[in-house]
Amino acid sequence: MTKKRILTGITTTGTPHLGNYVGAIRPAIESTQTRGDESFFFLADYHGIIKCHEPARIQQATLEIAATWLACGLDPAKSNFYRQSDVPETMELTWVLNCVANKGLMNRAHAYKAAVDENKAKGQQELDHGVTMGLFGYPILMSADILIFKSTHVPVGKDQIQHIEMTRDIAQKFNHTFGEVFPLPKAVVNESTQLLEGLDGRKMSKSYDNTIPLFVPEKQLRQLIMKIQTNSQAPGEPKDPDTSTLFHLYQAFADAAAVADLRLRYAEGISWGDMKQLLFETINHEIAPMREKYDALMQRPEYIEAVLKAGADRVRPMSRMLLQEVRQAIGIRRLF
Amino acid sequence: MTKKRILTGITTTGTPHLGNYVGAIRPAIESTQTRGDESFFFLADYHGIIKCHEPARIQQATLEIAATWLACGLDPAKSNFYRQSDVPETMELTWVLNCVANKGLMNRAHAYKAAVDENKAKGQQELDHGVTMGLFGYPILMSADILIFKSTHVPVGKDQIQHIEMTRDIAQKFNHTFGEVFPLPKAVVNESTQLLEGLDGRKMSKSYDNTIPLFVPEKQLRQLIMKIQTNSQAPGEPKDPDTSTLFHLYQAFADAAAVADLRLRYAEGISWGDMKQLLFETINHEIAPMREKYDALMQRPEYIEAVLKAGADRVRPMSRMLLQEVRQAIGIRRLF
Repeated sequence: MTKKRILTGITTTGTPHLGNYVGAIRPAIESTQTRGDESFFFLADYHGIIKCHEPARIQQATLEIAATWLACGLDPAKSNFYRQSDVPETMELTWVLNCVANKGLMNRAHAYKAAVDENKAKGQQELDHGVTMGLFGYPILMSADILIFKSTHVPVGKDQIQHIEMTRDIAQKFNHTFGEVFPLPKAVVNESTQLLEGLDGRKMSKSYDNTIPLFVPEKQLRQLIMKIQTNSQAPGEPKDPDTSTLFHLYQAFADAAAVADLRLRYAEGISWGDMKQLLFETINHEIAPMREKYDALMQRPEYIEAVLKAGADRVRPMSRMLLQEVRQAIGIRRLF
Repeated sequence: MTKKRILTGITTTGTPHLGNYVGAIRPAIESTQTRGDESFFFLADYHGIIKCHEPARIQQATLEIAATWLACGLDPAKSNFYRQSDVPETMELTWVLNCVANKGLMNRAHAYKAAVDENKAKGQQELDHGVTMGLFGYPILMSADILIFKSTHVPVGKDQIQHIEMTRDIAQKFNHTFGEVFPLPKAVVNESTQLLEGLDGRKMSKSYDNTIPLFVPEKQLRQLIMKIQTNSQAPGEPKDPDTSTLFHLYQAFADAAAVADLRLRYAEGISWGDMKQLLFETINHEIAPMREKYDALMQRPEYIEAVLKAGADRVRPMSRMLLQEVRQAIGIRRLF
């Protein structure tokens, strides 16, 4: 049995919120603590420039996201943690994969189709209006991210399964044309992924503007939790935990015994005010030490830069070797 | 006044023929001998893999084409002569340019439209049938080839003017979004470019299968010239030079006085056999010393490899610096 090589890409735009923490960051980091597999985590900054053309924001977001993952417990001694742009072999491999990937495959990519649908809905004549080649071709860059390290497993949300299928398709076509180079990566879909609700009870998401940022100061965290929408039931009235956003959030941060206990208190009619206070304390208990670490890390960008550089130094012998193998396979070779 | 920086891309597939020599190789090399400008010549091997998926052929063709240009007089001490794949910054820049280039621009590229038209003509349902992302997106790689060295002038055939227009469009959009980085390159269209006719009187072209390879052995060159189609006019009959393929070929290899002299001999009724012998001798006179050099170079692939590596070593400080400038502009930066 060969070791699994698990690759996780990290978006470098936007401020991480509790939903990202519970749904992605925490489980990803936990998985590295329990398994003996090789993990790769990379900051996808060259994906970031597809949509964000504000250089200062790209830079700042990269710093914040790196600090977030380190504060949440990602151990750069046990995992490979690097910046995509520090592995330029990825971009060279992207070109090679372009030359085997069918354009038809990209025509069917979700993100591209969504952009076209939006143009249709707006009555745009030019259906490709506002679509760059970066947006159209990014699944190939993603394939290169995965294949450059011969990753075997890629944890993804359901909406991203298509990317792994495309990667397999492209890898298969490469292997068929030029000989076996790439293992076919598997999508790992965590069915139990917790989707956190936001302030308004809908899925917590930047696009709904209903998020609770992960590392806001304690006072602001409390204020935000106090804003979570509830129904108008009075204190003392028995309440239904299963339709309560506050209860759902609590479940994401408390153990089974505490959750069972809270269920009783709902039946007993806990007031929304008390419940919010309890939720704040529970979340803050888990987040506070990380917040402190995060704030300290944000004061030391040169340390984070060094961590990422060290991560790149560790993985680049692999990406260089892979690219050498690919070049040999396709005929980009020494002349003698 | 700043120096011109002139960039010439060299296709690395196919065997060079007399048409390539007269239309592209000879004028390009002559221009470096007379001008004080900086010239860049690169073997476009990463373009080669778009259509050629035979590794041994890619490698062999790269060797042959490099040997051809050196044999024809390209002086690697005076020009920058390198292999595209030895400048990996090009592929990284390609990704960056993808993120500013509109997909709509690529939809209008000649090569892509030709592929779609061919599918339509064949009654293919899937109009993108057989189109890879490499074929669709290669104008962006071409833009990167040009912009990575801030080239100011690009000699092209008329059919390639579109590529330079696209490059200008992309460079302009980049400059507008991220600040002035790229000069806008100019297409240099040599109106007097000689289009050589082939064995059958049509334009000499691989696709017509009517070519005379540049460096075939002398005997074979003679045989091929003897095969050039003529009309059935007998010796002694006055002949029209302006409709004669043999005359046109002669024009490409002889000076004005010799051409004027031949015009008289046509009026006097030179026989096709004599004319073919004269043409052979004239062409062979120019080609023979290069053929000898070519054959010697082909015995020394390690020398050619060294020449190309030295060329890459000379240009990479420039491509690295350009990429650094680009990264700074887009926000792919050190974190402190």
